Amino acid sequence: MNQSIAEPAATQIATLQWIGGIDGYLRLIDQTRLPQELVTLDCRDVETTWEAIRSLRIRGAPAIAMAAAYGLCVSLQHSTDASVVEFFERYDVVSKYLASSRPTAVNLFWALDRMRAAADKLRLQSEWPRDILEGLLREAHAIVEEDRHVCRAIGRHGAALLTDGQGVLTHCNAGGLATADYGTALAVFFSAHESGKRLHVYADETRPLLQGARLTAWELQQRGIDVTLICDSMAAQVMREGRVQAVVTGADRIAANGDTANKIGTYGVAILAAAHDIPFYIAAPVSTFDLSIASGDQIPIEQRSPDEITHGFGRRTAPEGIHVYNPAFDVTPARLIKAIICEHGLIEPVTTHRIAEVVASKSSI
Amino acid sequence: MNQSIAEPAATQIATLQWIGGIDGYLRLIDQTRLPQELVTLDCRDVETTWEAIRSLRIRGAPAIAMAAAYGLCVSLQHSTDASVVEFFERYDVVSKYLASSRPTAVNLFWALDRMRAAADKLRLQSEWPRDILEGLLREAHAIVEEDRHVCRAIGRHGAALLTDGQGVLTHCNAGGLATADYGTALAVFFSAHESGKRLHVYADETRPLLQGARLTAWELQQRGIDVTLICDSMAAQVMREGRVQAVVTGADRIAANGDTANKIGTYGVAILAAAHDIPFYIAAPVSTFDLSIASGDQIPIEQRSPDEITHGFGRRTAPEGIHVYNPAFDVTPARLIKAIICEHGLIEPVTTHRIAEVVASKSSI
Repeated sequence: MNQSIAEPAATQIATLQWIGGIDGYLRLIDQTRLPQELVTLDCRDVETTWEAIRSLRIRGAPAIAMAAAYGLCVSLQHSTDASVVEFFERYDVVSKYLASSRPTAVNLFWALDRMRAAADKLRLQSEWPRDILEGLLREAHAIVEEDRHVCRAIGRHGAALLTDGQGVLTHCNAGGLATADYGTALAVFFSAHESGKRLHVYADETRPLLQGARLTAWELQQRGIDVTLICDSMAAQVMREGRVQAVVTGADRIAANGDTANKIGTYGVAILAAAHDIPFYIAAPVSTFDLSIASGDQIPIEQRSPDEITHGFGRRTAPEGIHVYNPAFDVTPARLIKAIICEHGLIEPVTTHRIAEVVASKSSI
Repeated sequence: MNQSIAEPAATQIATLQWIGGIDGYLRLIDQTRLPQELVTLDCRDVETTWEAIRSLRIRGAPAIAMAAAYGLCVSLQHSTDASVVEFFERYDVVSKYLASSRPTAVNLFWALDRMRAAADKLRLQSEWPRDILEGLLREAHAIVEEDRHVCRAIGRHGAALLTDGQGVLTHCNAGGLATADYGTALAVFFSAHESGKRLHVYADETRPLLQGARLTAWELQQRGIDVTLICDSMAAQVMREGRVQAVVTGADRIAANGDTANKIGTYGVAILAAAHDIPFYIAAPVSTFDLSIASGDQIPIEQRSPDEITHGFGRRTAPEGIHVYNPAFDVTPARLIKAIICEHGLIEPVTTHRIAEVVASKSSI
């Protein structure tokens, strides 16, 4: 981690950032308002943070992990005068509360575990809650800083897979808005673009919440990358017409064998890619792996409100009283994934053995 | 064609109907307003009819064929005092105009060809434009009446493929709203339901225009059939969970070899069905076959406005100036289709030879 990272353009607002010092707060882009409005939301209490994650104001596995880490800091600001025992009682309550915001992305739990490990270590150094909170805030900042490096490493490793003039397809948003600032799947496109490779990106709109139409299309457009928006149902046709030579998506949780949970629709795209002999890649940081589960069958799939489908964007689009099935994620089996692109390099083939090897490695990013 | 057909329930408004005699007009349900409002549009001139087809106020391959036949009658009402030469000059202009409303569904051209053949025959019997127009109106009525019988025959043949308790999936709307009153793909479900088989139907919402959410879900709900609405991107997951044992969709044009154009997304669903060993059926009348083209490569695919994707839900859901690709149809290759259900029975396997045999047959429906 010795690269310097260019600051985002002056006009670019960070996906999320901590404003101020120990008494500061979390500011994040309210992504439900994009692309019409670029507005921020200030989270000065844990309830606002929880709601922001739950309502997808901030979303994307790495980004919600960082939001949760900062949410923890916000929630403990009023406990700095308490005893260390009371401080940790409060800590346990809010950590559990933040963990309940969304069930599928493992990065959320990874971040909370990491913060807890830091807290326990900090307690050995000081019994003063204020000192512990200061340390926790440093840890949250470190997670964000690492994410910036990790995403750039993912971008570099992934970009090597693409060649000038290719068409690529992505589903949902695994961009700067899903991470600190550079993305995972989109990092691959950003990095290829920065190295002079011209790509043509097809962005699935990604129903029901249209993260592809609202966020991915917007991010690519902002960076001057050639992007075409399609409905999810058009991916097969676009592939058949030979417009796409690679598919790259992000991930919310990857089991020990490589089975990958990601936004609903990803599994279908992976089948379509296989049917057209197009390589399908997952781009995700190591924090997305959950080696405690052997396969994707054990990944809990969040079920979301029927309203997301029936009242998508300002008006009812289905009859009153209709039954709806709205799983937020699906699981793509490892056999459909050509390689997983992580900060340590490529995991290929996607096998339990190779995953264990790469995830455990400490190779410099 | 000797079955009597039960009248639709008193509360049910016809998809389209001719009101009055030779000086009457075409009344159709404005399907762009469903499911919020059940309102009709009266087409008293050919421009209104053309616009209704173009804007999908009436849609579905058989329904637009019938609308065009009636649209022809409407357009000729002011030419009954003209000479027969002038009458046919006008005829040629409006027939060509109506043919330009939508390019993919062949039933439209089939109906216009059939009307033309009738007109030529009528001219041999009378040189009076009014007599010819009366004959044309009878022909249009005959097309509608035949459609009612044809759809019921499709329903009967298709229902035999399904068993009690099965889950089935359909894409877009091939229901009563796409035909005179009973549908093609949905006829299969209606007929199975009427014979006491309990089905669970999954309806793809069908972006961009949501015919599945707005029309199919509504029709099935109206008839008391168990239906669950899903986003197009969820079909793979629903299949993987073992919820679906058959897929049935309609068709807009079928080439001589069985390659089938239907609503965008159908091709993808067919690949997903194959990947899960689920039989994929097309339900369509013989008028959907275009034996003049050897394969699906020759079917023109309508490209529609980007606005359908970027402004689909009453407000903008993508950034300004974004590129959009919006093909209205795709082509499912014959090899992915287990059988085509037409009024003459099943076409299985789907081969050029078997199609020629069945389409040419005159077996009673």
